[in-house]
Amino acid sequence: MSTSNNIADTIQNTINGKIKPLGSLGKIEQLAAQIATLQLTPSSENSLSILNPTLLVFAGDHGIAKHNISIAPRDVTTLMVSCFLSGQAAINSFIKSTNWQLKVVDCGIQTQLPTHNKLINARLGNVCGDISVEPALTETQFDEARLHSEKLLQQLDTNLIAFGEMGIGNTSPASAIFAKLFKLPVENVVGHGTGIDQQQFNNKHLLISKAVNRVDSDQPLEILRQLGSFEIATMTFTMLEASKHNKLILVDGFIVTSAAAIALAIKPSIRTNLVFAHKSNESAHGQMLEKLAVEPLLDLSLRLGEGTGAALCLGLIEAAVNFYNEMASFEDLGISL
Amino acid sequence: MSTSNNIADTIQNTINGKIKPLGSLGKIEQLAAQIATLQLTPSSENSLSILNPTLLVFAGDHGIAKHNISIAPRDVTTLMVSCFLSGQAAINSFIKSTNWQLKVVDCGIQTQLPTHNKLINARLGNVCGDISVEPALTETQFDEARLHSEKLLQQLDTNLIAFGEMGIGNTSPASAIFAKLFKLPVENVVGHGTGIDQQQFNNKHLLISKAVNRVDSDQPLEILRQLGSFEIATMTFTMLEASKHNKLILVDGFIVTSAAAIALAIKPSIRTNLVFAHKSNESAHGQMLEKLAVEPLLDLSLRLGEGTGAALCLGLIEAAVNFYNEMASFEDLGISL
Repeated sequence: MSTSNNIADTIQNTINGKIKPLGSLGKIEQLAAQIATLQLTPSSENSLSILNPTLLVFAGDHGIAKHNISIAPRDVTTLMVSCFLSGQAAINSFIKSTNWQLKVVDCGIQTQLPTHNKLINARLGNVCGDISVEPALTETQFDEARLHSEKLLQQLDTNLIAFGEMGIGNTSPASAIFAKLFKLPVENVVGHGTGIDQQQFNNKHLLISKAVNRVDSDQPLEILRQLGSFEIATMTFTMLEASKHNKLILVDGFIVTSAAAIALAIKPSIRTNLVFAHKSNESAHGQMLEKLAVEPLLDLSLRLGEGTGAALCLGLIEAAVNFYNEMASFEDLGISL
Repeated sequence: MSTSNNIADTIQNTINGKIKPLGSLGKIEQLAAQIATLQLTPSSENSLSILNPTLLVFAGDHGIAKHNISIAPRDVTTLMVSCFLSGQAAINSFIKSTNWQLKVVDCGIQTQLPTHNKLINARLGNVCGDISVEPALTETQFDEARLHSEKLLQQLDTNLIAFGEMGIGNTSPASAIFAKLFKLPVENVVGHGTGIDQQQFNNKHLLISKAVNRVDSDQPLEILRQLGSFEIATMTFTMLEASKHNKLILVDGFIVTSAAAIALAIKPSIRTNLVFAHKSNESAHGQMLEKLAVEPLLDLSLRLGEGTGAALCLGLIEAAVNFYNEMASFEDLGISL
């Protein structure tokens, strides 16, 4: 393989040469082609790998959460992070029978927790700004978030990073980002999160509208700093950093998709790295995935976050890799087409 | 737990008590409830298990295939069975990083293969009847198929059986079964299989119409014997037998769904045992799943068979089981609602 065109040909020929009808493995073939495109170089063997698949749950607290627009109080972010560390949460049960390595990235939750081997300190404060009245991050915090993401990548020995999140209130910044980035009316992008009532919903809508109207810029980075959050900003920078190192990036649900949307706006070529895990039950998610022209792997009506949708995709990714590496070709079997 | 109502309550309370918003794990919660309903008894612990998950690929050859209505000649059934045994096919690569135990059930392929530790002999002949002119199975073969399924269940030490299939030509009997069972026009249920051309398609349509018109009975067992095949009949009986032993039954694609449709017609309560793995790209499959009022877990545009869609669901099933068994409840954490 000497040029990238040749690599693309090698990949497609490898896939088409497998002993099965053309295209009959649908999205698994597409996934294999995507991973091959990321991993193969002119000098590499024609073989794919997934090394130490790592699931990062980015956690942060939200200024906007003080307005009672979530089903749980802000304390619950710290409580759930404790559960991730003690192994008691949904995400722990989802990865139990898998090879996922779980790490929690504390981007700034209300109460700092003691040191733990699964906890990465990337704190930018105790709570981000209330986006309805102020930027989510100061310029200084934004620069720090970028530095944290570079440091984070240095610590990880993996070629597959799944992105999950935890933060009471964090569907609001995600909705605000989508509204501003795609110039959509707020009513198109705001949902009921994990289950708020109508009054909370109306209030959430109002606060997100205030936030979106407050921001003049249409620059993706400034939208992120103004309307994002500690964990959404850190995720975006970590995705961009991961793409520099040719990592496969697995995007969980609605909130992680908002980080991916900013990353795509900044660096369109990151599309090659991104795999969208699932369409969540947060009402606007499907529409946002369509805006990004991406098709998620799963649709299981999940709306929890924590990386739960991403966690369920590891088997599909492993199948794609093994399909590419292991399945016989017509040539292997001495059959000419 | 003393009555089945109490068991149902225990299951729903267990799921609703987990530390997450109600219903936020969507289909994974439904899957957990289904497995719990199958496995829990008044005297059992409130804990689920998946023991030696077993994927059976039922293989058989088809009289109707002599009319050149498939992309491959009949020999390919035997060739692919050899590949399953030597580990070179798609299904082998899909299960490589999983706990699936693969067995191939030879229900009657053209050329009998030597003994192999992954091969189960359940042969009913070398090729089933040409359904366009005669019953797929004789009465004697049909009785034998039932006996084979009983024997098969005795050999398996598992509580999860995935059903896959291989048989050049076998979308035709599946379509014929759907047309007859649901009283649908043949054009609604016939598709392009793994990729035939228009002339082959027209011929396939004609032959299936002949088959369906040939059969008078609307009894599911007689439809199965007349319009099925060695592997579809054996799958149906094996599903019915598995349900007697409270096994979870994972249904792969279009052809396995035709076996499940007959099983459901014979024994509606088998619904509790059935999990539909995926919606395949065979055009009528989605409509057949709707007819059965079931929602598959995946939609990955697969159209290969071999159990490939079912294989990809093991991670989801394991997640559901671990979610039920392991995830903390509000009570565990001392939180009152």
